Amino acid sequence: MGQRGKFITLEGGEGAGKSTLSRGLAERLRARGHEVVVTREPGGTPNAEAVRALLVEGDVSRWSSIGETLLLYAAREDHVRTLIQPALARGAWVISDRFADSTRAYQAAAGGLEPDVIETIHAASLGTFAPDLTLIVDLDPAVGLARTIARGEQATRFEQQPTEFHQALRQGFLAIARAEPERCRIIDGAQSAEALLEAADRLVRDRLEAAAA
Amino acid sequence: MGQRGKFITLEGGEGAGKSTLSRGLAERLRARGHEVVVTREPGGTPNAEAVRALLVEGDVSRWSSIGETLLLYAAREDHVRTLIQPALARGAWVISDRFADSTRAYQAAAGGLEPDVIETIHAASLGTFAPDLTLIVDLDPAVGLARTIARGEQATRFEQQPTEFHQALRQGFLAIARAEPERCRIIDGAQSAEALLEAADRLVRDRLEAAAA
Repeated sequence: MGQRGKFITLEGGEGAGKSTLSRGLAERLRARGHEVVVTREPGGTPNAEAVRALLVEGDVSRWSSIGETLLLYAAREDHVRTLIQPALARGAWVISDRFADSTRAYQAAAGGLEPDVIETIHAASLGTFAPDLTLIVDLDPAVGLARTIARGEQATRFEQQPTEFHQALRQGFLAIARAEPERCRIIDGAQSAEALLEAADRLVRDRLEAAAA
Repeated sequence: MGQRGKFITLEGGEGAGKSTLSRGLAERLRARGHEVVVTREPGGTPNAEAVRALLVEGDVSRWSSIGETLLLYAAREDHVRTLIQPALARGAWVISDRFADSTRAYQAAAGGLEPDVIETIHAASLGTFAPDLTLIVDLDPAVGLARTIARGEQATRFEQQPTEFHQALRQGFLAIARAEPERCRIIDGAQSAEALLEAADRLVRDRLEAAAA
């Protein structure tokens, strides 16, 4: 193709259906002829997965919000430089389950860190690199956490946070969507997985494929 | 005592004798009635030691200079907040084998990162927190590396760097000393361990204990 691929990020709280959605979107895009790389944060590369282990294990207060942010950006810089940018450069589309907006929501909106500190660290690590499209899957945190528990997953450090944390997280994601309407779209996480995929795929077609055609 | 303790950092290249010096200085300070905490970077706390493992193991090009800096500051913030500051607050003196100047020398002067990026991350993580006294043990890198090999230690990622890296590192430390003469003193790492300790202890007495008396 010779054309740079597109970078799509899925954001939102726990249990919003992001992982299932990323696989479904990848299938649709592949059926339309794109090479697709599905990845996640924190993680996505061996180095970044090693950092992820430090972040998700241990006591809920193991790291400060600034400590988490520094670890997340160490992982993110590796992820972007060694996996995401090479994939985009060869024309592949990349879908990441979480990216920088999760740091903005978890560590700033819910974690109390000054938003400017995150933007400073982002710029130092990644310059102006940003997704082409961000889908924020919005869901009542009580519903999301119930889904996570129903899946029988062991709670990570973040899922163990109190209700107010998860409410602040949701509001944080909605504020990001309001602040960057060109890049971000909110989709309703309460609908069925099929309807969620349909809504997401329509946004991808309208906002990225129509423009690229 | 009720008085805040003093924070002393030892800096310099590999094999300069910093670890032996930190133990010797601690002994002298204890003999003069101070509580002393001896620590090191990267590391010094369980969280920071976990980050250290990511930094010292693996291939020489495992992380980028900005990736290393972010990991180092995640470790450093934990180290300062949970170990160094509480110790200083109760009146203990803290001696750290390496601190922020090592990031300035390794990741900027020798690693090619813009110095401003490190200062930005330092300010975001630690504000204006800085040592009361920094002793830079200066030594020809060829001598330092020969000592490290003679100790039979396994080379870390940093020791495997080429000669030019270690020359740039030495110049980086000397430039820091020139830029901050109030905080930093250079001592000659080519002298015997006993003479090195004597020179360091004299600086500690003149610059910190005389002032505190």
